[in-house]
Amino acid sequence: MAPVAPRSGDAIFASVEHVNAELFTLTYGAIVRQLLTDLEEVEEVNKQLDQMGYNIGVRLIDEFLAKSNVSRCVDFKETADVIAKVGFKMFLGVGASVTNWDADGTCCSIVLGDNPLVDFVELPDTCQGLYYCNILSGVVRGALEMVSMKTEVTWVRDMLRGDDAFELQVKLLKQVPEEYPYKDDE
Amino acid sequence: MAPVAPRSGDAIFASVEHVNAELFTLTYGAIVRQLLTDLEEVEEVNKQLDQMGYNIGVRLIDEFLAKSNVSRCVDFKETADVIAKVGFKMFLGVGASVTNWDADGTCCSIVLGDNPLVDFVELPDTCQGLYYCNILSGVVRGALEMVSMKTEVTWVRDMLRGDDAFELQVKLLKQVPEEYPYKDDE
Repeated sequence: MAPVAPRSGDAIFASVEHVNAELFTLTYGAIVRQLLTDLEEVEEVNKQLDQMGYNIGVRLIDEFLAKSNVSRCVDFKETADVIAKVGFKMFLGVGASVTNWDADGTCCSIVLGDNPLVDFVELPDTCQGLYYCNILSGVVRGALEMVSMKTEVTWVRDMLRGDDAFELQVKLLKQVPEEYPYKDDE
Repeated sequence: MAPVAPRSGDAIFASVEHVNAELFTLTYGAIVRQLLTDLEEVEEVNKQLDQMGYNIGVRLIDEFLAKSNVSRCVDFKETADVIAKVGFKMFLGVGASVTNWDADGTCCSIVLGDNPLVDFVELPDTCQGLYYCNILSGVVRGALEMVSMKTEVTWVRDMLRGDDAFELQVKLLKQVPEEYPYKDDE
């Protein structure tokens, strides 16, 4: 059988089930507000959003692999490209680009073209340390871990903090050899 | 100028920005899990989800009115119909129907055709009192309050509790005359 060609982010996005982006934006806002109320410390909220994103990422990767026909990426460079061009498009409906590669190809930036999470959002002065979109960094980290790449994902530019773009830095820490953690008969 | 005809739920849904439904489903699941951890009591989680939904509903109504061209509904019956056929379609991408009217036309049920919130969800035994989708009842209540209808919205059937459908009962408590709460110069 001939290999199936990977599908474009646009094609996949068009073929999946959707909900209204504004409903998603407001629902996400409700989470952040809830965490700010419950956890009080902005730093704790950042951590919790990242953790929630991680849990989502480890599950979304299945849908991603099933729908995208993307096969194993040859290296981290190709992986970053697929996340930006297929992954972001497929889930958030927005494109992203990859820039700022370091010399040894283990660190790059994903710059979002648009960010539906922040529509109508303004941070009050009391939330200045907040990484409002930290769920996204967690999603990327969680999804990559499922394909054996341990990464550190951090915001280096954030429009809610006055920057001119949303830029996620993705640093490859370790490529774990793919093995099942347990033998079948354990 | 001729009045603009109301648009169908399908047409509106096709014209708005979207995100992937699975991302929304998992994000909503993360909220529920967070609340269960933070609040411990299932009853408190039900209340909090409803309150979050209420806050979302009071904001979504603007998008709804702007995009749907729906003008003032003549009565509660028409309003319920519009919520089911246009509102649910426009935001969740699913149709709903209105049934079980009481004799005086102040109480009915909205039955969902499908419910993207619960894909892959199973409640553990410890959560048996949970109304997992309580955010939806809150959204309906909040949106209706913004068009001057005080309602009580409760789940009477819930597939996560073993029922054969998701059925929201909407009871009109009071139709508030539309007035600004403050004078302009206050």
